[in-house]
Amino acid sequence: MTVLQVVLAGAGRAGANHALHLAEHVPAASIAGVVDSDSDSARALAEQLGCAAHGSLEEAIERTPFDAVVIATPTFTHRDLAVTAAAAGKHVFCEKPMAITERECDEMAEAAERAGVVLQVGFMRRFQPEFVAARRRIEAGEIGDPMVIKSLTRGPGLPPPWAWDLKTSNGMLAEVNSHDFDCVRWLMGCEITRVYAETANLKGAQRGVDVADFYDNAVVTLRFASGAVGTIDGTCPADYGYDARVEIVGTAGLLQIGEVRGEALLMVQDRETGAVSPVHRTWPERFEAGYRAQMRAFAAAALSGGAPPVTAADGRAAVHAVRAANRSWQEGRPITLDQVLV
Amino acid sequence: MTVLQVVLAGAGRAGANHALHLAEHVPAASIAGVVDSDSDSARALAEQLGCAAHGSLEEAIERTPFDAVVIATPTFTHRDLAVTAAAAGKHVFCEKPMAITERECDEMAEAAERAGVVLQVGFMRRFQPEFVAARRRIEAGEIGDPMVIKSLTRGPGLPPPWAWDLKTSNGMLAEVNSHDFDCVRWLMGCEITRVYAETANLKGAQRGVDVADFYDNAVVTLRFASGAVGTIDGTCPADYGYDARVEIVGTAGLLQIGEVRGEALLMVQDRETGAVSPVHRTWPERFEAGYRAQMRAFAAAALSGGAPPVTAADGRAAVHAVRAANRSWQEGRPITLDQVLV
Amino acid sequence: MTVLQVVLAGAGRAGANHALHLAEHVPAASIAGVVDSDSDSARALAEQLGCAAHGSLEEAIERTPFDAVVIATPTFTHRDLAVTAAAAGKHVFCEKPMAITERECDEMAEAAERAGVVLQVGFMRRFQPEFVAARRRIEAGEIGDPMVIKSLTRGPGLPPPWAWDLKTSNGMLAEVNSHDFDCVRWLMGCEITRVYAETANLKGAQRGVDVADFYDNAVVTLRFASGAVGTIDGTCPADYGYDARVEIVGTAGLLQIGEVRGEALLMVQDRETGAVSPVHRTWPERFEAGYRAQMRAFAAAALSGGAPPVTAADGRAAVHAVRAANRSWQEGRPITLDQVLV
Amino acid sequence: MTVLQVVLAGAGRAGANHALHLAEHVPAASIAGVVDSDSDSARALAEQLGCAAHGSLEEAIERTPFDAVVIATPTFTHRDLAVTAAAAGKHVFCEKPMAITERECDEMAEAAERAGVVLQVGFMRRFQPEFVAARRRIEAGEIGDPMVIKSLTRGPGLPPPWAWDLKTSNGMLAEVNSHDFDCVRWLMGCEITRVYAETANLKGAQRGVDVADFYDNAVVTLRFASGAVGTIDGTCPADYGYDARVEIVGTAGLLQIGEVRGEALLMVQDRETGAVSPVHRTWPERFEAGYRAQMRAFAAAALSGGAPPVTAADGRAAVHAVRAANRSWQEGRPITLDQVLV
Repeated sequence: MTVLQVVLAGAGRAGANHALHLAEHVPAASIAGVVDSDSDSARALAEQLGCAAHGSLEEAIERTPFDAVVIATPTFTHRDLAVTAAAAGKHVFCEKPMAITERECDEMAEAAERAGVVLQVGFMRRFQPEFVAARRRIEAGEIGDPMVIKSLTRGPGLPPPWAWDLKTSNGMLAEVNSHDFDCVRWLMGCEITRVYAETANLKGAQRGVDVADFYDNAVVTLRFASGAVGTIDGTCPADYGYDARVEIVGTAGLLQIGEVRGEALLMVQDRETGAVSPVHRTWPERFEAGYRAQMRAFAAAALSGGAPPVTAADGRAAVHAVRAANRSWQEGRPITLDQVLV
Repeated sequence: MTVLQVVLAGAGRAGANHALHLAEHVPAASIAGVVDSDSDSARALAEQLGCAAHGSLEEAIERTPFDAVVIATPTFTHRDLAVTAAAAGKHVFCEKPMAITERECDEMAEAAERAGVVLQVGFMRRFQPEFVAARRRIEAGEIGDPMVIKSLTRGPGLPPPWAWDLKTSNGMLAEVNSHDFDCVRWLMGCEITRVYAETANLKGAQRGVDVADFYDNAVVTLRFASGAVGTIDGTCPADYGYDARVEIVGTAGLLQIGEVRGEALLMVQDRETGAVSPVHRTWPERFEAGYRAQMRAFAAAALSGGAPPVTAADGRAAVHAVRAANRSWQEGRPITLDQVLV
Repeated sequence: MTVLQVVLAGAGRAGANHALHLAEHVPAASIAGVVDSDSDSARALAEQLGCAAHGSLEEAIERTPFDAVVIATPTFTHRDLAVTAAAAGKHVFCEKPMAITERECDEMAEAAERAGVVLQVGFMRRFQPEFVAARRRIEAGEIGDPMVIKSLTRGPGLPPPWAWDLKTSNGMLAEVNSHDFDCVRWLMGCEITRVYAETANLKGAQRGVDVADFYDNAVVTLRFASGAVGTIDGTCPADYGYDARVEIVGTAGLLQIGEVRGEALLMVQDRETGAVSPVHRTWPERFEAGYRAQMRAFAAAALSGGAPPVTAADGRAAVHAVRAANRSWQEGRPITLDQVLV
Repeated sequence: MTVLQVVLAGAGRAGANHALHLAEHVPAASIAGVVDSDSDSARALAEQLGCAAHGSLEEAIERTPFDAVVIATPTFTHRDLAVTAAAAGKHVFCEKPMAITERECDEMAEAAERAGVVLQVGFMRRFQPEFVAARRRIEAGEIGDPMVIKSLTRGPGLPPPWAWDLKTSNGMLAEVNSHDFDCVRWLMGCEITRVYAETANLKGAQRGVDVADFYDNAVVTLRFASGAVGTIDGTCPADYGYDARVEIVGTAGLLQIGEVRGEALLMVQDRETGAVSPVHRTWPERFEAGYRAQMRAFAAAALSGGAPPVTAADGRAAVHAVRAANRSWQEGRPITLDQVLV
């Protein structure tokens, strides 16, 4: 069996999660090296994986033969890493958000196209069984024509400082809710045409986060090319658990994806408290199956040279919608998505 | 509108529950008096209801004009009260268990028949919406032929001392699980033919209850005339809540009635604890709709002189099955139900 | 016991629902007459209730002694009926939406105040057990400070033609989602300050409804005085059932009210179909407990002359928010609620 | 990394399921060959796995170097295969039921002990996350002392003919409910002391199965050494899905494991039908995580030579309890488990 040699860029939590799935569950891939500018993190993860550690992607390219890179670094570094990797003929898997601006996304897409390498964006919900089943049902017409879609993501944990600043990220709507912006497009089978957002800095304010434009709660209305409407909402940190759910109302029915309860356990100790069920606690646990299948799909696409299941155009569309939503609350007006956002 | 004048025998918790439903929700009935040998209880409830209190049913018969009696006293008093009431031409609603022995049930049935009065037994689950819907579905053949039925009742609260003694009650299987023995007959549409029971004194032992033949946990296997099989189980006290559920496996499907969760609320405060939903806390709350509809049905039957929806034969069948189950664990063998149990 | 004599104005579905609860479950009230300009409807319901039918409220005032009126007619008639009733010294219970404009609401409130009568608005969710429990928990601080609230109402049934026209109603956001606008204020304990709405005519378009400004789907973002944000969404007709749910994210947890599943039944017939549970089918069934408790509360307030639990100010606030939301989608911009909407 | 070379005995459905998990998800193991007396099945699976096919275990031993065997053949062949493998120094993973009789179990255990090889029995529920979590909670005392345990397994699919005959299997209680007999011991932390069973041939009768002692429904009462009681029930075929659930009532609470609903999806198309959720359709899907973790644990134990997490004594205890339950219904009496069953 041909095995895809992968270098992992980014030894943080997302990187370690990809590494785990690649190492333990993707026979068609093998980890050839870890890159992290923080050399301690890189070395620790590399040691655990039994591979080499590098201080930069360039170093890895120079010293190690490999086929593909998995980018799991902060958003503002994605463009440079992807362009460098593609230029060196490496296939690229890039975590969401794809980049900071639409222009960066375009540069990444062009680099990949020029080099003839696969460029896949990390929207793992498209591989999560209940999301896959839901999309199949919608496409089969089981709920008729979608009229309203509502998608939410909430998660525990204060985001890293670079994700607070709209210049190094696009804030919570990018870091947390990119998945929602992608999912609604994918499930509705059509594009978002207008967004309006309200945001609030509530928990951050309590915790003393005082960054311009920081927000930790957002609600967004959506209008779609089909005439349908929708909402996205996000809260981070939401210490009660990791929560990702979607519901779609169609002309012929309702479909709900996901639920607050996680494991199939229920315990009651006393009448006053009530019945208690475990919740999803973290995103690697909530979307374990999706993360695993996503890496398998990337390996398959890279090995065959086929089209990736999530494209640069998908990554760009989410960046575009997120930036429009940010502009909306900043300017206090709805934003139409065909406008150029500079 | 003709109104049924009702005297309530028994001013305890079950009596007060019937009184509430009669007074507040059954326009066709009116409470004419309360009887309780504990004259304080009787007086307190009577005052609340705005009616007369009596120390005995005989006294009530002598002093107050009324049409019907609702018996909610300890089981060992049911026979005498029912026979006295019937002899005086009063319709009789009798709480479960109907009586201590099959012979007592027969005497009650004969007294009612002689007097031409209605005698209804308090199996309120037959009036509870989800049980009614389930039965309709089974009868409509929606799960095919029933093969296995499992019914359970568990509730908080140490039972009163008279309910511990197999001579003044038939123990937990009678006081708590009578409903299950009735429900399985009603839902399966056929008779129980054999029972085997295992019982245990576990929580009572911890709490120092030391009565011969006392048990607070029981599991029972059932065989039905149709060839189907089943189980009943009971635990009391089960301090985690009031829990009553049934499930039926048929040749063409599964049907579940009831669930641990009560009110449609869910709360998560932190990831460690999980998602919490209220549970059913008490039987008057769990079966509120059933208790209400049951009293309406009794008033209707008594006013029209029609057949009651739950008959003396139903009450007797449950007593018979409970006594067979008790004999089973006492003798360590399965008991066939056509045997005479003296 | 003093009994409140009630005249029912409006013999349609909402009126019949109130009549049922008053007649069967509110001992403190009695129905003295039915008013409906459609004399057949009035006569049919009056006959069923055993009371007089009148062609107009004025006629009822002239011919029948009574204490209070329950208004369940189309929205555009509320103001006149309420003012007439108050002027005649009758207590007023008025279905939601309270009226078409804020000015009408003010006139109703002034008429009631002048006459010293109770004026209660029909937001029955405030009486529904799970909503009451949720509010108590929020007030007790169980989820910390509310950050995001999402409320939805969807229901089957094409609305009556007068409810399509923004001149005789305020459309779906008024007729269906008034409850949401009231609930979010009540649960959050603060006022809405800004709204933005997107609407769509999707099912109506399929069914040939061609009224200017008609919409059958809406999503709305909310901003609150506390700094919190939220959404409301509505779909009508949503033929899959009657669906009303709220969720609130606080700094210390998540609270969900309501669920799609109704009765506690589950059936599986085959693996392909899956497990099936009944849903809430209609609003009278979904909020039966709330409707009942609401009528009891109105009777109590009217008999005691006390303050009603839902005031004219509450009714007006919902009308104001709905009208702001309508203006929002009509003008394509967010609307701040302190603006005068003429 | 040292890799455990595994030969798979049995190319049926259970074997293919083990093969899948070994090949795709257990990096520490590799499949060295497939054995099946049906050489077509063996060859097809071997081809798919890219390994050699053998007509017998002896042939595999002779021709292929390997370390361990996974036995997934009909029950009546387990003893011979396990003894042969152990004698050749191979570690043994044996599907449940371990064997037909306690004596066979003893012979297998002795052979493994003599050879110093690992012998692990296939109770994968002990590796399934929600079962593992439940056991941890019980051991931590979260529900106090267990008083009642109820375990059920129901599944679709008519069993193969050899599983109907009590001589080549021990019937449904062995083939389907072995897992329950093991689980209750494991979760309760003590031994079953007495069983009583009722069985019925209902669906088989409809389908023309006419084998002596065949049954497709069973209910069993259990008594435990601790004084606790319980039930096990089984139905096969239960075409509505694959259903495995446990509930435990303790002195301080209730714990439920598993639920009928599988994937986190809900769909409502119309009010008449209700809300539909997917169910667990097959055992490989229901216990996917358990099967995977079980194979990892076997590989780890075999490679380290450590004690297996599920022992021959566990396998024997389940066989003993099942045979006691079969004798119970055959003789119409409860059976105490310290009796020798020949």
